[in-house]
Amino acid sequence: MRIALLGGTGDIGRGLALRLGYHTEHDVIVGSRDADRAAEKTAAYEAELDEHGVERTLESGTNAEAAAEAGVVVVAVPPYYVRETVDAVADGLDEATVLVTPAVGMERTEDGFHYDPPSIGSLTELVAATAPESTPVVGAFHNLAAGRLAALDATLDVDCPIVANDATAKRTVSELTAEIPGIRPLDAGPLANAAEVESVTALLVTLARHNEGLHDLGVKFT
Amino acid sequence: MRIALLGGTGDIGRGLALRLGYHTEHDVIVGSRDADRAAEKTAAYEAELDEHGVERTLESGTNAEAAAEAGVVVVAVPPYYVRETVDAVADGLDEATVLVTPAVGMERTEDGFHYDPPSIGSLTELVAATAPESTPVVGAFHNLAAGRLAALDATLDVDCPIVANDATAKRTVSELTAEIPGIRPLDAGPLANAAEVESVTALLVTLARHNEGLHDLGVKFT
Repeated sequence: MRIALLGGTGDIGRGLALRLGYHTEHDVIVGSRDADRAAEKTAAYEAELDEHGVERTLESGTNAEAAAEAGVVVVAVPPYYVRETVDAVADGLDEATVLVTPAVGMERTEDGFHYDPPSIGSLTELVAATAPESTPVVGAFHNLAAGRLAALDATLDVDCPIVANDATAKRTVSELTAEIPGIRPLDAGPLANAAEVESVTALLVTLARHNEGLHDLGVKFT
Repeated sequence: MRIALLGGTGDIGRGLALRLGYHTEHDVIVGSRDADRAAEKTAAYEAELDEHGVERTLESGTNAEAAAEAGVVVVAVPPYYVRETVDAVADGLDEATVLVTPAVGMERTEDGFHYDPPSIGSLTELVAATAPESTPVVGAFHNLAAGRLAALDATLDVDCPIVANDATAKRTVSELTAEIPGIRPLDAGPLANAAEVESVTALLVTLARHNEGLHDLGVKFT
């Protein structure tokens, strides 16, 4: 499978690139608005993988190039760039592309971080509304701490709730997720449940802020 | 400490009454709109505790009686009764009472359960707006599965995020929570963060519904 990471130069993109490169055989394409920046980061990821004993080549390109060539496209950009990024790559998406969205809208007020979804209900549903109608959208990876993901020696042992309306696309992303040791994919139902999944991310930030010794938190359901 | 469980005849009330009775020395008062029903359930709880080798007496009474006599008052009623219950016991609340709210508003649609907070932002904040101004309000126990709580032989091993604006009241409830083995209290910040905590409960219901073998779920942050 070919997996594009749009905004793959950012924190969550780095984490996913390293984990997918380290634990799986899939082709990984690191995308960015700036192809040179994508190439530069990709070289750095390859060097990190090499330090961990994995010698492999990752690809890079503009977001549009990356999306057009991949079967799974992860929109790993900050929340406020999600819509324009999906718009920018829409020509390269079709019914054979699974579009995955991990972004979460949060606002910071004087008393902390709060979940701040768009008016449609969740960023995941905004991606679904923005993408071509034929492209199945999957919400996943919202609750993964980017730093822990990128630390290849760190134990994950976390859950990853996954929402989608398309059962095949949901299965594709679940199986991909399960290839990373320590991440358990869980079916969180249709896209309409995305808000409850995204909202957990704000809670993780809050808990890390208020509890000594807790950081880079993940969630488990037991 | 004397702990009143308003609506202590319901599922979460039963779970808390049994766990507090089993694991702690605190006085527990089971409240209900109907004092006879409270007395009947209290006898049943005492019998369950006895079966588990704990011989002790719990108290019972109307919600108003229970609230007036307790230092910690848990509003363990269904979400749509929360406001009227707090109103009904308000005369018995003062600055020495810690009012605890575990209720979560959810709506069921054709595609599942969704978090459905009141317009003020969360049920926890609705309780704070309804209670006498001098009474500190604490949001806690939202994410505990009632059935697992009530099963005294069941391992809990879950986290309990706690929100409050009053640091002393938050500490009181955290310490009380920590007396139940397997529940780790976590500071989830001020009342303004209650929505993210309450919302997890809807996700727990959704995950139990969509994943074989998962039921009576709790949440852990790791």
